[in-house]
Amino acid sequence: MAEDFQGIATQFVAHYYNTFDTDRKNLAGLYRENSMLTFQSSQCLGVSAIAEKLVNLPFQSVKHQYGGADAQPTLNGGIIILVTGHLQVDGGEHPLGYSQAFHLTKDAAGQWFIFNDIFNLVV
Amino acid sequence: MAEDFQGIATQFVAHYYNTFDTDRKNLAGLYRENSMLTFQSSQCLGVSAIAEKLVNLPFQSVKHQYGGADAQPTLNGGIIILVTGHLQVDGGEHPLGYSQAFHLTKDAAGQWFIFNDIFNLVV
Repeated sequence: MAEDFQGIATQFVAHYYNTFDTDRKNLAGLYRENSMLTFQSSQCLGVSAIAEKLVNLPFQSVKHQYGGADAQPTLNGGIIILVTGHLQVDGGEHPLGYSQAFHLTKDAAGQWFIFNDIFNLVV
Repeated sequence: MAEDFQGIATQFVAHYYNTFDTDRKNLAGLYRENSMLTFQSSQCLGVSAIAEKLVNLPFQSVKHQYGGADAQPTLNGGIIILVTGHLQVDGGEHPLGYSQAFHLTKDAAGQWFIFNDIFNLVV
């Protein structure tokens, strides 16, 4: 039976941005050794490289606001998600548009993790 | 050996938007019966529903301009792509920001097609 991919996506995205905006080093738990992140065209492979990239982004505080998370199932039982929204860095007055695509899949223990992650500002 | 996923993605995206901007009914050839399109949260399944959606979008002419196409390989030999850019509808003066995520995979004949397609305006 098909899982509720939209429900999983909505929950995942809320958890992801809440973690990002409160203590982003805790995002590491959502990636695995074969995960990929492309952040503004800069590429990272694996949980430690990805966590280092995210923790060292050049701002102290960030707040993501997104309009929704559109999800579709993929062939291998994964979920692809596209998020579009705005983010506010260090309390700045001008929110920046962004989009982020996630591809979630399950690890050997049956836990969802981020296999593909591509982030871009929309300028 | 890993295919040149970034090269395939770049070629695909150029072909996709060139087709979209010249005669978008020809996009049908890039989808299959199990393809999914989520266009501004409206969902279509299968090549004929998707083609109908794209052909009947409420504008005559459109021009996509995008800053690049970031690509990653997926677990099942597919390619995930995130495009961010602007589009100009019916020669309007104010381009609209958009983002679009594609998941490409190969059909039984070894031809790339769009399995997942999620499009959103960034407003």
